[in-house]
Amino acid sequence: TIMEAIEVHLNRGLTEKFLTGKKILISAGPTKESVDPVRYFTNHSSGKMGFALAAEASRLGAEVILVSGPVTLKTPDGVTRIDVETANQMYEEVVSRYNDQDVVIKAAAVADYRPISVYEEKMKKKQDGLTIEMERTKDILEELGRRKNSQYLVGFAAETINHLEYGRKKLEAKNLDAIVVNNIKTEGAGFGSDTNIVTFISRQGAEKEIHLAEKTEIARQLYQMIWTEIRDEQQ
Amino acid sequence: TIMEAIEVHLNRGLTEKFLTGKKILISAGPTKESVDPVRYFTNHSSGKMGFALAAEASRLGAEVILVSGPVTLKTPDGVTRIDVETANQMYEEVVSRYNDQDVVIKAAAVADYRPISVYEEKMKKKQDGLTIEMERTKDILEELGRRKNSQYLVGFAAETINHLEYGRKKLEAKNLDAIVVNNIKTEGAGFGSDTNIVTFISRQGAEKEIHLAEKTEIARQLYQMIWTEIRDEQQ
Repeated sequence: TIMEAIEVHLNRGLTEKFLTGKKILISAGPTKESVDPVRYFTNHSSGKMGFALAAEASRLGAEVILVSGPVTLKTPDGVTRIDVETANQMYEEVVSRYNDQDVVIKAAAVADYRPISVYEEKMKKKQDGLTIEMERTKDILEELGRRKNSQYLVGFAAETINHLEYGRKKLEAKNLDAIVVNNIKTEGAGFGSDTNIVTFISRQGAEKEIHLAEKTEIARQLYQMIWTEIRDEQQ
Repeated sequence: TIMEAIEVHLNRGLTEKFLTGKKILISAGPTKESVDPVRYFTNHSSGKMGFALAAEASRLGAEVILVSGPVTLKTPDGVTRIDVETANQMYEEVVSRYNDQDVVIKAAAVADYRPISVYEEKMKKKQDGLTIEMERTKDILEELGRRKNSQYLVGFAAETINHLEYGRKKLEAKNLDAIVVNNIKTEGAGFGSDTNIVTFISRQGAEKEIHLAEKTEIARQLYQMIWTEIRDEQQ
């Protein structure tokens, strides 16, 4: 509506565009790992958190690249979107652009495993069971942590138990600057939801919970925390 | 638009509502079979063919129940929709309503296999591979064929090779009245497409190809063929 447009315009005026001049790459959504031309493995990621992060970064003035798995969401205004299907494609598109970025946020739920054999024709069903042998996909976040020079690197962890403990370990293990963790079994923090409840944990020692809020609001608060840390490091 | 609404209205007037008084149940879309709270198996079915069949049956005057797996499509006007996620839920919702129906069309791409073990918590990844043991789901179409009394039962077969031969065999094996087969590797006949190219094969001996057309047009032609067969049987 016109009222909404005016409100967006006013909010833009009020919000300092503190990410102006910064290059941010965000990954979002699930990946699809084929078994055959019909069947595939995937996960419940809707891409909403990653798309909210991309939209908010663009509003805050950043130059945003969004590398997205298969989702049904509209590309946010001003954002360059690159669509991928598989973990391998996600790896290529993210890693090849890594050196140019100031901030990289890996919000995608990339498949950890994929079937070793992908059949060219649809498998015929048989009376008995079926065993699918899976292999690890390349660990994108680990690779980004290894190659990191000046980028501020943010990971996500969606867990069902011990999410804070797991998040702290992942922050160290993957050489991240920060990790955003949530328990997907908590009401309002699950996949597909328009809201989230997260904890921001950083290498510099922050551990801040962001209470139940719309994903766009979560994104705004995350950028404030990230930006505070980048400024502090530069001083 | 208003023009479209007028056109729909005129077409309704022109088309004889030859399915008036008939009860039709249609299944559509894929199913999701969980590995854990995050990961699942599914397939590329978009649900578009099943939804087009439901919309067209409703326009032709039938009382329509649409049992749908997880898709992002709007419920057609006048159609009663029941949402399911898994093959097991699809089985329950379809089989329990079977006796009341005049025509049942199984357009859903129900998973043939599901993981034997479903983990309550998200699996942690390990350095090495992963083996997923799968078991057969209940064969819905086979069960419907076994329980058939007066229903006209239609199956679908989406194949990548030898689709006609496979369709003829499935028609016999599952005790169907007709089967609609397509080769999903043919341009314009794939999953997610708004068009299709199918062959209608019936127990009464019909074997008719419907050339590349919108799925709504395919649906209209299929009902004409189905209706002709039902009328012939009743005479």
